[in-house]
Amino acid sequence: MSVTVVGSIAFDAVKTPWGRRDRLLGGSAVHFSLSASFLADVRVVGPVGDDFGEAEYDVLRARGVNVDDVEHVAGGKTFFWSGEYEYDLNTRHTHDTQLNVFADWKPKLSRASRAADVVFLANIQPDLQREVREQCADARVVGLDSMNLWIETAHDSLVRTIEGVDLLVVNDAELRQLTQKPNLVQAAREVMGWGPTAVVVKQGEYGASLYTPERFFSLPAYPLETVVDPTGAGDSFAGGLLAYVAAHPDEGLGDELLRRAMAYGTALASFNVEEFGTERVQRLSGDEVRERVAELHAITNWVDLPVEQRA
Amino acid sequence: MSVTVVGSIAFDAVKTPWGRRDRLLGGSAVHFSLSASFLADVRVVGPVGDDFGEAEYDVLRARGVNVDDVEHVAGGKTFFWSGEYEYDLNTRHTHDTQLNVFADWKPKLSRASRAADVVFLANIQPDLQREVREQCADARVVGLDSMNLWIETAHDSLVRTIEGVDLLVVNDAELRQLTQKPNLVQAAREVMGWGPTAVVVKQGEYGASLYTPERFFSLPAYPLETVVDPTGAGDSFAGGLLAYVAAHPDEGLGDELLRRAMAYGTALASFNVEEFGTERVQRLSGDEVRERVAELHAITNWVDLPVEQRA
Repeated sequence: MSVTVVGSIAFDAVKTPWGRRDRLLGGSAVHFSLSASFLADVRVVGPVGDDFGEAEYDVLRARGVNVDDVEHVAGGKTFFWSGEYEYDLNTRHTHDTQLNVFADWKPKLSRASRAADVVFLANIQPDLQREVREQCADARVVGLDSMNLWIETAHDSLVRTIEGVDLLVVNDAELRQLTQKPNLVQAAREVMGWGPTAVVVKQGEYGASLYTPERFFSLPAYPLETVVDPTGAGDSFAGGLLAYVAAHPDEGLGDELLRRAMAYGTALASFNVEEFGTERVQRLSGDEVRERVAELHAITNWVDLPVEQRA
Repeated sequence: MSVTVVGSIAFDAVKTPWGRRDRLLGGSAVHFSLSASFLADVRVVGPVGDDFGEAEYDVLRARGVNVDDVEHVAGGKTFFWSGEYEYDLNTRHTHDTQLNVFADWKPKLSRASRAADVVFLANIQPDLQREVREQCADARVVGLDSMNLWIETAHDSLVRTIEGVDLLVVNDAELRQLTQKPNLVQAAREVMGWGPTAVVVKQGEYGASLYTPERFFSLPAYPLETVVDPTGAGDSFAGGLLAYVAAHPDEGLGDELLRRAMAYGTALASFNVEEFGTERVQRLSGDEVRERVAELHAITNWVDLPVEQRA
């Protein structure tokens, strides 16, 4: 019933057409944790520097996230990312990335973190992801995200790491790049040949798709009139997805479970982008999540009625 | 129970990563008609030249499409388009467009075509679309497609034409460009403020979305391992959509009807892209369409189960 996530804990400077923030709590493990906290017990693993204070810890603690494995690197600075979104929010420009304490960090998981039922390897260097996966040998379900940087610079290591996980969660461009197959059906099949039971493809404003050996499923994004800051949407999605899996330990990692899990991921991601950074999710309620999942069901459901056809 | 479509009848030269064809029967009205013919009586209106022979007429007649209003322009040549798709099939390059008989054509609909229950104004110059719309004053439902060329060169005329139709069917980039709103929810609401009851947004490999005043719906594309030729997919989609509406004269143009209509459009479009031009749809059966709609239902349906949530 618990999830451990290993990934970045960061400060972000974000500029969008709707404003800017110079110092937001961010990072893949943070967005994942806050989202996952609505459905499961969460432990977050990652390094921070001296600039990461009680105010930041409190955001995580307020949602019940266990921060015992957040590693304080004395004298260090927290990972920093700065970027800007264009008018249509689909195009993102990175202005600055400072690895800081992340540069030499090696994940060391406590016994409690290693014992999690579900583990998510957020987007970090694939050798490190594999070390974490080996430390969590007994996990029932292990998920993994990655990015173009690792596909380009550490392709073989990444493939080896993917061979050892159950669920790949990447965006469509990454899946194409990873497999060199432009068709997503073929690309997902290739990945499942490496080991994973399922592939979830994130498609931003278009939603997400699920590939399992026998079936396919697709779910649109929740339609919003205003998207303020897309940063962390994919991590929030993964948080809801994996935490829903953790909350259902008696169900196998099959199509039926993952469809519902994607709905929770989609709902949580939609809240994440409504305001800057973690602002919206910090004051989100479980009732709001449930309501949005129900709305998502209403906007994706349709009845197949028999129809008279010619020929 | 009948549909009239006014649009281009063409010869296409198409190159894709899977091969090339130098002379394919094509054009928006042709793809629309063949697709619509599975669900309703269809009449096709558009000009052709001397090079359009019995073989081409027979493709339409074989599917029961009424070609009485196909106008033969003596001494003229049929509209010709030549283009090429890149490896991922999302990017299309037009090499050549020869308007030929289309250059000076004015639509003149027979009494029978004007009496259709449903009329589709495929992508032609908006002044011409408005003339057709005025000739079909009694139509129960009028749909319209357009393209970036007309948005750029005849924006005001296009808006005026859209004011007089019930259903706008365009792709997402066109909707954004038309309304100058990057957010599709806002863009669709703007269009509904002009007159239409509903907006259907085509999103290529990502499927299609439906906007009505009170509701939203999204349907993924049917996942195919191999897409051979995307030409005409949007027109086939519109053909299935509008013909389904025509086949249900007792239902208002509301969310429930349009959701099912989109499923038929999606299924028909998926067959269209499996082979070059009209090759696949020419030997398609009603049973295959029904089966694919059922499959589409299976891959978009999910059950919203109650879940224990914290906070």
